[in-house]
Amino acid sequence: MKIAILGSGNVAYHLAKMFKEKNIPISQIFGRNEKDLQEISEQFEIPFSTTELADAELYFIAVNDDAVAAISKNIKNQNSLVAHTSGSLPKEILEGNYRKASFYPLQTFSKSKMLQYSEIPFFVEAENEADSQILENLALKISEKVMKSDYEKRKYIHLTAVFACNFVNHLFARAKEISDSQHIPFDYFLPLIKETTLKIEKIEPKLAQTGPAIRNDEKILQLHEALITEEEHLKIYQVMNESIKKMYEL
Amino acid sequence: MKIAILGSGNVAYHLAKMFKEKNIPISQIFGRNEKDLQEISEQFEIPFSTTELADAELYFIAVNDDAVAAISKNIKNQNSLVAHTSGSLPKEILEGNYRKASFYPLQTFSKSKMLQYSEIPFFVEAENEADSQILENLALKISEKVMKSDYEKRKYIHLTAVFACNFVNHLFARAKEISDSQHIPFDYFLPLIKETTLKIEKIEPKLAQTGPAIRNDEKILQLHEALITEEEHLKIYQVMNESIKKMYEL
Repeated sequence: MKIAILGSGNVAYHLAKMFKEKNIPISQIFGRNEKDLQEISEQFEIPFSTTELADAELYFIAVNDDAVAAISKNIKNQNSLVAHTSGSLPKEILEGNYRKASFYPLQTFSKSKMLQYSEIPFFVEAENEADSQILENLALKISEKVMKSDYEKRKYIHLTAVFACNFVNHLFARAKEISDSQHIPFDYFLPLIKETTLKIEKIEPKLAQTGPAIRNDEKILQLHEALITEEEHLKIYQVMNESIKKMYEL
Repeated sequence: MKIAILGSGNVAYHLAKMFKEKNIPISQIFGRNEKDLQEISEQFEIPFSTTELADAELYFIAVNDDAVAAISKNIKNQNSLVAHTSGSLPKEILEGNYRKASFYPLQTFSKSKMLQYSEIPFFVEAENEADSQILENLALKISEKVMKSDYEKRKYIHLTAVFACNFVNHLFARAKEISDSQHIPFDYFLPLIKETTLKIEKIEPKLAQTGPAIRNDEKILQLHEALITEEEHLKIYQVMNESIKKMYEL
């Protein structure tokens, strides 16, 4: 089966890398950014083009959400299967006369950061069972965790990821503002942060909760509110503590 | 120097363990819970008592915040140095005629969970430089990261930890409610969570931010708000996204 990748960003790079590692040949990598394409091309020995999209049976579109529809118009082969890799778009975003699909790896990708691909969950959706099987079998060569997921479910997967990752990272950023304001190196918190996430691999997060709110320690909660000087910090502090108290019916 | 530990919980257990690993002898472990004391006593070959506190030159009080003042009254030796291990209490909480101090390891401890003690930051405060040196030197045998920290600073360290750990864990708990509601195994998010925290060891969190809010993707933000059915989820979703937008001036 001839496979092509459209895109040259973080996801495209890691798709090329994971297929290469499993000896799944990629016919071409196609996109606008010649420098990025060349880098991927050299590293994984895949031909690239910025002008002529090669004919293939399976296309992966791994570009920013905003660009998916536009780039999908380049595909003219009506006998092909085309999958985008976005968590938040329906497969119908693809514009063309071909079979449409979604192939969503649940991970945050950076070119510079190595990953264990076998741990990454892949969520697959296609128009029919045969296409779904093609994508599931491909994903199963890379990972142990492959699931069917329609757009309805994918939306919730993405929402969960926003809470568990985007918001978590923002808490780290806000926490660093507090430690910076007192000249406390943020590095000092990294072992605690690491342990907090390691813990939920063994204990479910609801049972692992600690801190002043779950102890209903009003003295500390008031002391903290008096320490906080930034409005956004105070809003987060109050909403999170209220939510903790409600979860445990305190 | 004769050292005793008061308490038999998670922190007391790990204090005993870290001292044992460095061949620092502990004269006694003292507390109320005989079963827990016996376990620590057997594992680390330390005498224990529930009734008679041994005479020592240095006492560590590693009990719940609420119990620190009461248990500190057991110490009668006026020539001793007494340090509690709480992040949120001043050293003056200790009640007795002895030199008072604080010895705060910044980590979340569970008996069942092994830890790299050398990575744990220790924050030390004492009444005078000689006592501070005693505690700093002891901490330096265990960890590379030892800092002086008065109560003023310790309060901010604790506040930072609440954002970076207690609130982060609560986001995991709320995220799991969303994935549970759609029968998506929460395990599927663990590689993504792990990667989110590994990333900030290399990139500062403000620069690592991803997600719909920082892209100012109103379509996705509205779609997510329409998906959310729980009031607490919606409050968190809105406050966190607003805070992200403010941080990046969107």
